[in-house]
Amino acid sequence: MTFLNQKYLTLTPYTPGEQVDEQEYIKLNTNESPYVPAPGVQEAVAEASQKLNRYSDIAVEVVAKPLAQYLGVKQEQLFLGNGSDEVLSYIFQGFTEKGIAFPDVTYGFYQVYSGLYQVDATVVSLNEDFSLDLKEYDELKGTVIFANPNAPTGIYLSQEGICEFLERHPDRLVVVDEAYIDFGGKSMVSLIDQYKNLLVVGTFSKSRQLAGARLGFGVGNTELIADLNRLRFSLNPYNVNSLTQAAGGAVLQEQAYVDQKIQETIQVREWSKQELTKLGFEQTDSQGNFLFAKHPKLAGETLFHALREKKILVRWFNQPRTKDYLRITVGTQEQMERLIAVLTTILEGVDA
Amino acid sequence: MTFLNQKYLTLTPYTPGEQVDEQEYIKLNTNESPYVPAPGVQEAVAEASQKLNRYSDIAVEVVAKPLAQYLGVKQEQLFLGNGSDEVLSYIFQGFTEKGIAFPDVTYGFYQVYSGLYQVDATVVSLNEDFSLDLKEYDELKGTVIFANPNAPTGIYLSQEGICEFLERHPDRLVVVDEAYIDFGGKSMVSLIDQYKNLLVVGTFSKSRQLAGARLGFGVGNTELIADLNRLRFSLNPYNVNSLTQAAGGAVLQEQAYVDQKIQETIQVREWSKQELTKLGFEQTDSQGNFLFAKHPKLAGETLFHALREKKILVRWFNQPRTKDYLRITVGTQEQMERLIAVLTTILEGVDA
Repeated sequence: MTFLNQKYLTLTPYTPGEQVDEQEYIKLNTNESPYVPAPGVQEAVAEASQKLNRYSDIAVEVVAKPLAQYLGVKQEQLFLGNGSDEVLSYIFQGFTEKGIAFPDVTYGFYQVYSGLYQVDATVVSLNEDFSLDLKEYDELKGTVIFANPNAPTGIYLSQEGICEFLERHPDRLVVVDEAYIDFGGKSMVSLIDQYKNLLVVGTFSKSRQLAGARLGFGVGNTELIADLNRLRFSLNPYNVNSLTQAAGGAVLQEQAYVDQKIQETIQVREWSKQELTKLGFEQTDSQGNFLFAKHPKLAGETLFHALREKKILVRWFNQPRTKDYLRITVGTQEQMERLIAVLTTILEGVDA
Repeated sequence: MTFLNQKYLTLTPYTPGEQVDEQEYIKLNTNESPYVPAPGVQEAVAEASQKLNRYSDIAVEVVAKPLAQYLGVKQEQLFLGNGSDEVLSYIFQGFTEKGIAFPDVTYGFYQVYSGLYQVDATVVSLNEDFSLDLKEYDELKGTVIFANPNAPTGIYLSQEGICEFLERHPDRLVVVDEAYIDFGGKSMVSLIDQYKNLLVVGTFSKSRQLAGARLGFGVGNTELIADLNRLRFSLNPYNVNSLTQAAGGAVLQEQAYVDQKIQETIQVREWSKQELTKLGFEQTDSQGNFLFAKHPKLAGETLFHALREKKILVRWFNQPRTKDYLRITVGTQEQMERLIAVLTTILEGVDA
């Protein structure tokens, strides 16, 4: 017997990437940063731990204030969530009355949220080269959401096309999921005053080294943010705990560290791209902290398992359009050198 | 213009208790523990902070394993959430197809969740003395939820009546919200194997000093827990962040500290009850970490403001049945002595 509401019996939940022992594996499968968080995080968190008997600050002031300043927005244009997943969940729950549309190859959770909230979702195929053409969304209704740079392809869509779409459809909400924007491309955040129908989503999980702390944000005009808070105060007003608040606040005091690690990641990414090309891989021009590559001689699944045997974990999606590819998170230079060496050995075996 | 789905336009969000500067106020308004968390929490959290670049453990093993052991259940009978609020939210989202019923005087969020998920909710009046008679739920359909001990009354309902209800209605889910059970009464957790329709909710916010960390749990048979996880993996699988996991794990290693603080709270509560009675207050026999008291000579609102002026913050609910009362969290002995002294002065002013 189940007590679960009928409509949830057919839900297809999200499949997160494997979490494994870092001592044993080189972990390039969940687009985490390979670098430890900024030095100030530990002290801030230790201090906050001594006040855990008190509820967390509902305004998340210690993050909201410096983050608003960093982004150049007002605090009331900023929404903070228990990871950007929670922010996205609120968006699918709250802003989808007329439906939602998103690309076929993108963050898997868009489809999952559509199922959870029983949203009328339209999945639009990306072009053959995985590029996104927003004109294909013109005839649809309701909200549009896409990741920019996209995942798992890393392809970046320039602002021009997005702005044109925002102008053509002032009554449709456009959500730009910028989880990876710090690794390439220009954030749309500076345009939220200009476009009332623009909502930008960001995260501390990738460029700010806080995946385990769960801190995400939404940026948009005050009405949009007030609506998100309406949902938040009806579901979990204390959604961002005190420890995460302290960690996020500390990271925002150390932008130099964050910027340096972003630069390192970009350098390692570009080096890795070149090396993969030398090995015969075909790739998208990823602007994220990951690569999206396939090899003409080996199936994605085969490569995935061969790497796993050599204790390197990458991500393989068993989906029609992506099953030839691997998504490889950009690790440290040392880790990527090991990856290239292992791939070289694997491919030598194939050529022989 | 709003992009918010119509059905949410009339939502009435939850009103959390005020958070104020502890240097300035004696804070007896949100049922927090007045004691700092167990000594091991700081080190555990500081250590976890160095791995925040990695996602949190989806299985929340560091908490689930010792908690299951402490509760005497299997890990697959345990669900962990971002505060018990999130657990409750999943329950209202997932187990309410045939409606839900709860008392008129109880945790305010039950009504809020009913609105959020558009659940057919039946509000059943408590008896005149605020006691709960489950027989009044016999003729209703669907899920039943109540807090035990109840909030804000602190009244505890003995297991016998609950078990009889569970037996009379094997096809109806009964959710017992035991946020305050450690301060008085017997947990229903030991009965989950016996009753497949029993789901118990608990929290680390009160007796375990972790309100700011947001850690709650649900305990029930494996099917119920699997259904909750189905929702969780469709909304936010990384709902419990790594820092909170570390804090919760550490607290579970220090049950002696937790037990000692529970005993202190109970002693201070009983002392405070006596003192309030001497001052002419009428009270429920609260088994929580709070008191629920009214004075025949002063309105609840008047007392609330008089105390606030003296820098003591308590909770006053402006609702028909509770507006005469104050809900006063049990603080330290010292804080409660100050409360009694201030109340004595206030009441002297009235008598004069």
